[in-house]
Amino acid sequence: MAKAINLNADMGEGYGAWEMGDDAALMKIIRSASIACGFHAGDPVTMHRLVSLAAENGVSIGAHPGFNDLWGFGRRRIDMSPRELEYMIAYQIGALQAMAAYVGQKVTHVKTHGALNNMAAENLDLALAVGRAMKTVDRDLIYVALAGSQMEKAALELGLPLAREGSCDRLYDDDGNLTSRKIAGAVLHDADEIRDRVVHMVTEDEIVSRTGKRLKVKLDTLCLHGDEPSAVLAARAVRQGLEAAGVKIVTLPEMLG
Amino acid sequence: MAKAINLNADMGEGYGAWEMGDDAALMKIIRSASIACGFHAGDPVTMHRLVSLAAENGVSIGAHPGFNDLWGFGRRRIDMSPRELEYMIAYQIGALQAMAAYVGQKVTHVKTHGALNNMAAENLDLALAVGRAMKTVDRDLIYVALAGSQMEKAALELGLPLAREGSCDRLYDDDGNLTSRKIAGAVLHDADEIRDRVVHMVTEDEIVSRTGKRLKVKLDTLCLHGDEPSAVLAARAVRQGLEAAGVKIVTLPEMLG
Amino acid sequence: MAKAINLNADMGEGYGAWEMGDDAALMKIIRSASIACGFHAGDPVTMHRLVSLAAENGVSIGAHPGFNDLWGFGRRRIDMSPRELEYMIAYQIGALQAMAAYVGQKVTHVKTHGALNNMAAENLDLALAVGRAMKTVDRDLIYVALAGSQMEKAALELGLPLAREGSCDRLYDDDGNLTSRKIAGAVLHDADEIRDRVVHMVTEDEIVSRTGKRLKVKLDTLCLHGDEPSAVLAARAVRQGLEAAGVKIVTLPEMLG
Amino acid sequence: MAKAINLNADMGEGYGAWEMGDDAALMKIIRSASIACGFHAGDPVTMHRLVSLAAENGVSIGAHPGFNDLWGFGRRRIDMSPRELEYMIAYQIGALQAMAAYVGQKVTHVKTHGALNNMAAENLDLALAVGRAMKTVDRDLIYVALAGSQMEKAALELGLPLAREGSCDRLYDDDGNLTSRKIAGAVLHDADEIRDRVVHMVTEDEIVSRTGKRLKVKLDTLCLHGDEPSAVLAARAVRQGLEAAGVKIVTLPEMLG
Repeated sequence: MAKAINLNADMGEGYGAWEMGDDAALMKIIRSASIACGFHAGDPVTMHRLVSLAAENGVSIGAHPGFNDLWGFGRRRIDMSPRELEYMIAYQIGALQAMAAYVGQKVTHVKTHGALNNMAAENLDLALAVGRAMKTVDRDLIYVALAGSQMEKAALELGLPLAREGSCDRLYDDDGNLTSRKIAGAVLHDADEIRDRVVHMVTEDEIVSRTGKRLKVKLDTLCLHGDEPSAVLAARAVRQGLEAAGVKIVTLPEMLG
Repeated sequence: MAKAINLNADMGEGYGAWEMGDDAALMKIIRSASIACGFHAGDPVTMHRLVSLAAENGVSIGAHPGFNDLWGFGRRRIDMSPRELEYMIAYQIGALQAMAAYVGQKVTHVKTHGALNNMAAENLDLALAVGRAMKTVDRDLIYVALAGSQMEKAALELGLPLAREGSCDRLYDDDGNLTSRKIAGAVLHDADEIRDRVVHMVTEDEIVSRTGKRLKVKLDTLCLHGDEPSAVLAARAVRQGLEAAGVKIVTLPEMLG
Repeated sequence: MAKAINLNADMGEGYGAWEMGDDAALMKIIRSASIACGFHAGDPVTMHRLVSLAAENGVSIGAHPGFNDLWGFGRRRIDMSPRELEYMIAYQIGALQAMAAYVGQKVTHVKTHGALNNMAAENLDLALAVGRAMKTVDRDLIYVALAGSQMEKAALELGLPLAREGSCDRLYDDDGNLTSRKIAGAVLHDADEIRDRVVHMVTEDEIVSRTGKRLKVKLDTLCLHGDEPSAVLAARAVRQGLEAAGVKIVTLPEMLG
Repeated sequence: MAKAINLNADMGEGYGAWEMGDDAALMKIIRSASIACGFHAGDPVTMHRLVSLAAENGVSIGAHPGFNDLWGFGRRRIDMSPRELEYMIAYQIGALQAMAAYVGQKVTHVKTHGALNNMAAENLDLALAVGRAMKTVDRDLIYVALAGSQMEKAALELGLPLAREGSCDRLYDDDGNLTSRKIAGAVLHDADEIRDRVVHMVTEDEIVSRTGKRLKVKLDTLCLHGDEPSAVLAARAVRQGLEAAGVKIVTLPEMLG
């Protein structure tokens, strides 16, 4: 049976008159879009445009909730109780569901944003809060979780559909965590290198750590970026490389279905 | 057959540490709650508390969307295009639907807030924008509209369930519009007077204008307030007066069902 | 005596991670910068960057206050009382003064933004509210006012220093008002045409209306834009054209001093 | 020479239609008001009302800056860089200076709010960032710092006027830190007990820790609260107790002058 993988990206991260990234270009490459829901980015008009763009491209729609922090673009850690966090996530998912109704689609996954994603990856209480919000609003929502993180654990514990996510452009430590951005070279920029790494990850079900250790992991989805023109080029290279290797690029519901 | 009427109130209009009105007291009196959705008031935690309180009291849940204006509490007119307004309304309804899922309830009506309610009452384009948002998100949502306003017209034009709303504590002009607050005596404060007016409105299906003209109107719902202790007393008097007159107090879905 | 004119531009209209326009390029062309103050755009970090950039370029610093509306970028009309508006303006001026202290500069002018600018141009009560805020915070602040508008009247009535502003890229009606953007051709885009118009305005102290009528007006400042690459080109052409015609390009305090 | 002490309180912590605490009552008791500046609470209209109230009561005016977090009321820790924090503080001080101009007063002190105050008490980098903002905007601003905290250290390092603050209603550990609120009894509620403690602190220049250890400390100011009726009663008792003990109650500039 042919290998398959999902490609996802964070999208709709402008706000009002402000734009961020080339959503239209990226939408042609990915199969699942994680759409900002108004707290760190993404106003109702932008959200409507993004669900429309996703529907036109046959891309599955997910919520990309973040902290309530436009100024910090959701990249600042904010110390909230799990309960507050949970309701904040539910709110954002619901808001996007309403927008998805405009194009007759369902929201099918949730991928947290920025500092919230980092915190939930490390902290099971927060990861469970995200999961409980998802389960309450729609128990079929797919939890996109960094492979090996507390989010993966939370999804399993709550019985939510789980998509293990890998990084295309970050090095990994031997323990399976992402190498800190503070380490030189931790973030890859070369489109060919990124493509080759990703094809290996997917076809071999393993990640090679920065020391050369082989880590076995079965990924369901890979996260692409579109905030810079070079990122769009790398995204395109990844897709082409995977297709050339015979890997089928599918939506998240198809991947898990 | 016995007369019936719905009693509704705007609720959950605090924000974070700030409170507004006595929601707990009012929830014992009304049968439908219009809950603020985060734009003019109402954060996710407050929304969760309100849907819980509503469910405990068997009160039906509605969205109370307003302008994106915490400072102005949604009382400032903001000039938005119908399209922007529509998506803003859809967003807020969706957010509340997610919170209602916590108590296994549906959002069953929409009542706009403050300046938005005033503008949509006067302007058919805006009233239709509100209605299209409702119809897209859930075509069974009940449009709570000031009787005789453009919102009533919009609900009829869109084929949405319509609840004609009357005011308990405002005088009416001969043309059926509310007397401007700028006219002395336009707002009633005496609980007994308010109760007697309301009982007449409901049992006789007519409103007596401030010049004494009898206006025939069949109301489905009456709006109560809880922002001041005297308002809660008046609300209680209204409910008792109606029950003493043999009028059944029902939820909005029961009223229209 | 040689003619002189000020060139100003609205700046610092990004927010957090979001950018807007090419401030660095425009700062080389203009002599006075109107810096967004956090309500429609412009967070504290952006404001700090802009005052630094202005100081490096010998550009005088002004406040560019707008409505409290990030989503609408201050382009939506909001119905506030003159009193509320006045304190909102004072607040924003004060905030920018603090940032200007970082570069040892004073805020020397105020130019309102977007919908607020349009409303204050039409409505004397609002224009006076802006002026009272200025006068309270620093009576030497220069009121940048559309020539012939209610803002000009307000500045004169309050005895504030007044800079009459002309538009580089908009047609004028016979009565001296800007031609509505809804009229085809009301906004000019060709850099050469814009340059020639501006040189005529400044050297002849007259504006030619779209019907050909000559309107005598002595302008102190012209507003340039940098939101699109073509706008920066036009700005550069304007500056070069004026200098070629022997017009001195000065800061607002130099212009009025 | 007679003993003197300042009494201060956080004020103006409502927002738009929402109120918080009894500012009018507290203003009669304290001599210095720390006024919220719009980020965690306090809109321009509220700020104007508070500076007016302070001026009428001869109370000195200070800024009470907090995190950009209306929902969390500035009580959530937000991870910002010292540089971002610094500009955010400067912004808020400047905004209040503009409002103080309405009553011909200067802002004379800065007291940080909530989570920001807790973080700056623990972290010298953040405490220095607050101090640098103060020093840039006005080098005479008094830094109100929890006695013994990193803020005290920062004020000394930067050469800013320093007011050492004590708590009226919190127990202290043997090391001079406030006993955690999680420890039963850490917060005092009885007005008489609070009064007696405070009189001892001020007349003897010592705090008795919860284990009975005597900690020598010379306080310049004590923080009172007005968020509950009982807090206002305790504040009044503190003032009366101090006056009965011959302690003069003065403004912060008088205390340090």
